[in-house]
Amino acid sequence: MPRLVVIGGNAAGMSAASAVARASCGWDVCVFDAGGDLSWGACGLPYVFSREADGFDGLFALSPDEIARRGIEARTFMRAVELVEGRKRVVFSNEKNGSLSEESYDALLIATGAVPVIPEIRGFFGNNLFVLHTLADGRRLSSFIESERPRSACIVGGGYIGVEMAETLTMSGIQTTMVVRSDRLLGKLNPDFREKLAAVLEDNGVRLLRGAGITNVRKKGGKVESLETSRGTVSADMFICAAGVRAATSFLDDSPISLGERGGIEVDGMCGTGIPSVWAAGDCCCVRNFITGRSCYVPLGTTANRMGRIAGANVTGGREEFPGVLGTAITRAFGLEIAVTGLNLAEALREGFDAEGASIGGSTRPRYFRGGKEIFVSVVGDRGGRVIGGQVAGGEGVKGRIDTLAALIQGGVRIRDAENLDLAYAPPFSTVKDPLLTCFSLLKKKLRDN
Amino acid sequence: MPRLVVIGGNAAGMSAASAVARASCGWDVCVFDAGGDLSWGACGLPYVFSREADGFDGLFALSPDEIARRGIEARTFMRAVELVEGRKRVVFSNEKNGSLSEESYDALLIATGAVPVIPEIRGFFGNNLFVLHTLADGRRLSSFIESERPRSACIVGGGYIGVEMAETLTMSGIQTTMVVRSDRLLGKLNPDFREKLAAVLEDNGVRLLRGAGITNVRKKGGKVESLETSRGTVSADMFICAAGVRAATSFLDDSPISLGERGGIEVDGMCGTGIPSVWAAGDCCCVRNFITGRSCYVPLGTTANRMGRIAGANVTGGREEFPGVLGTAITRAFGLEIAVTGLNLAEALREGFDAEGASIGGSTRPRYFRGGKEIFVSVVGDRGGRVIGGQVAGGEGVKGRIDTLAALIQGGVRIRDAENLDLAYAPPFSTVKDPLLTCFSLLKKKLRDN
Repeated sequence: MPRLVVIGGNAAGMSAASAVARASCGWDVCVFDAGGDLSWGACGLPYVFSREADGFDGLFALSPDEIARRGIEARTFMRAVELVEGRKRVVFSNEKNGSLSEESYDALLIATGAVPVIPEIRGFFGNNLFVLHTLADGRRLSSFIESERPRSACIVGGGYIGVEMAETLTMSGIQTTMVVRSDRLLGKLNPDFREKLAAVLEDNGVRLLRGAGITNVRKKGGKVESLETSRGTVSADMFICAAGVRAATSFLDDSPISLGERGGIEVDGMCGTGIPSVWAAGDCCCVRNFITGRSCYVPLGTTANRMGRIAGANVTGGREEFPGVLGTAITRAFGLEIAVTGLNLAEALREGFDAEGASIGGSTRPRYFRGGKEIFVSVVGDRGGRVIGGQVAGGEGVKGRIDTLAALIQGGVRIRDAENLDLAYAPPFSTVKDPLLTCFSLLKKKLRDN
Repeated sequence: MPRLVVIGGNAAGMSAASAVARASCGWDVCVFDAGGDLSWGACGLPYVFSREADGFDGLFALSPDEIARRGIEARTFMRAVELVEGRKRVVFSNEKNGSLSEESYDALLIATGAVPVIPEIRGFFGNNLFVLHTLADGRRLSSFIESERPRSACIVGGGYIGVEMAETLTMSGIQTTMVVRSDRLLGKLNPDFREKLAAVLEDNGVRLLRGAGITNVRKKGGKVESLETSRGTVSADMFICAAGVRAATSFLDDSPISLGERGGIEVDGMCGTGIPSVWAAGDCCCVRNFITGRSCYVPLGTTANRMGRIAGANVTGGREEFPGVLGTAITRAFGLEIAVTGLNLAEALREGFDAEGASIGGSTRPRYFRGGKEIFVSVVGDRGGRVIGGQVAGGEGVKGRIDTLAALIQGGVRIRDAENLDLAYAPPFSTVKDPLLTCFSLLKKKLRDN
């Protein structure tokens, strides 16, 4: 029986393993994971702290029993340390006793995910400094909060986890400061959306220090006491490092596997690595940007699941193609929903598009209808008529509009046609002309007038 | 100065008039309306009764002053009674004094909208029997409810207005019966969605009589006492006829204008009628079905606004094209949101498509996340790979998903690619694989396996 070895038992790895096991085409499927927790929903981690998610154990998509029932062998605490590609073997380190072992494969799927990026500053560690990446990280932070009752927190980083944790900690009464190196938030927010989010964070009590590079760490007795930054010293009872991630691919440094941006494995549209019988999927990979066609590092759970499924299908002889990503993402902070897809205007111009953008503010319901909320839409297109990206922020209905935008981009709807999309309208749900369509009318007008 | 005469001062007519006036290209714009209320949001009418909309006066999009400030002359209570196409004139009847007058035009836009269909049954009228089409209708019904305090109501018809009024009346404590001639609800709901809606209506106290043809009307002193139907006698204190609409085009019966399904004016993609200088837009028109390419009657406020804008642009020399409609629509009853777009499976088969459908039930949030609601998605495609339509019902997030479906249909996304759309995910908003994508995966599998 041919053997599929999967390195990494989370979104991408488990999707692939399940796809192969489900196809019941005579493969022996074995998943190795460096940690002890397989198949859990990493995006849910911040919401355990806000008590919207049902505890850490609730995050598991599959229990060990369910994994076994799918015919998947799971081997935990086994960290891949070397790919011996010529002999179709992987060397694993047993994380419990340090012993090394080799496992042979007929097909290999690398799905090791990502690791947090830690600022390279002397002393940037301590028993009150946390990352939030694994379930173990979450449990460690949670028990610290319960036992130490911190009254203040400092979050390093202004990405999704940083914003989500800032909301959660603030809501639970912990005075929270965010230290963000650049002036950016959520990576690629437009300047106007970024300022809206900043205002919402600050209005709700988060202290936001942007453009704040960390210069020094002050410690006492194994604890971090304060961070010195270019915008002043930040003291806190606890620190969370949420400064982004990079691909967990350092074990491949000496292998023939090509690594790109932030260590991401370069894969083709079928999740092949170019090395025979070696596939890769998920946050350890670079992916094709649907707009630019170029390889980029955009780690997202949705992408990981999709690539895992596609890699799984292709391992067993399928010919599934991954169309690339728009990097569609959404989050929420203090009632403001914010979402992005494709390129923003600055990125589009930098990528060489002859791009133009339009932004509007509107309401999610007719003026006369109770409960309508503000909504802001921005779209970006090029003079050739192609829609390139957009962002949506508002009090409700943001996911629907960013998804509609993503679908029309992937469907290749032209700018001139976008305002005529036949979207659903009833007063509880929208204005008669959806704000998304109003924004496209404006973009069309700007492109015509200029 | 050339003169644009617009017949009908609501969604389509006022959109066109505004577009022409805004273009300030030297047209004299005059809007004639058979009633006294211009530019109001008809879809809001049921929500005045539920007190979610801010009174009847709140439904006006533009006040008479605002209309005048746009440079539009408004003439109310002027009903078009004849088009004298050869002399470029329209005969109007003054609804206040019955006098006739002729108005000449250089361009004419017909935007007379629709009129309610009244069952052809002897005695089907009375001072406690209402339609709900104009603001005057709404005010009449409202004052009846306030003065007479009816304890029971009977709604004839199972369309959008019928369902919305059934919810509203029931919530305000009026025992409501719906009498629906066929077994259908909301026109084109799939059987399974239809039964879900029926169950929600009945669980919330609406008495639903489907397959109930009205055979006789019992009256007393100018009031309807009861309707005899094929499913028994329905007595009530008030009756609402919401049995659909047809185009308000009877004044064109002797004109060379082509009328189609339910009296709708046949227009081309630019809202031209084929008669020189005569355009038409909105609920008085048939429109091209985006899927079948055939003319059909699908009166919707969104379409009316869009056609009005396009007709307005083309009157003044533009070349805007209307791409046709999917008939995307949404409503809500007792917390269940329901939406449709494109063709359902039965329609697709009837139209000759080699069609297949898939349906799934899911949740709007991950299992572990608080507050997730049930959601049901069905999609229809053909064996050539084209997406033809779909329906979504659930407790939240329905508009977003039907809009995404509409966008991917209009963008021409193929069935094989639809499951890979890059939609937004975060636990408060969706499961990691959106239910819409799961449904497409199932459809793809069904098409492959059969």
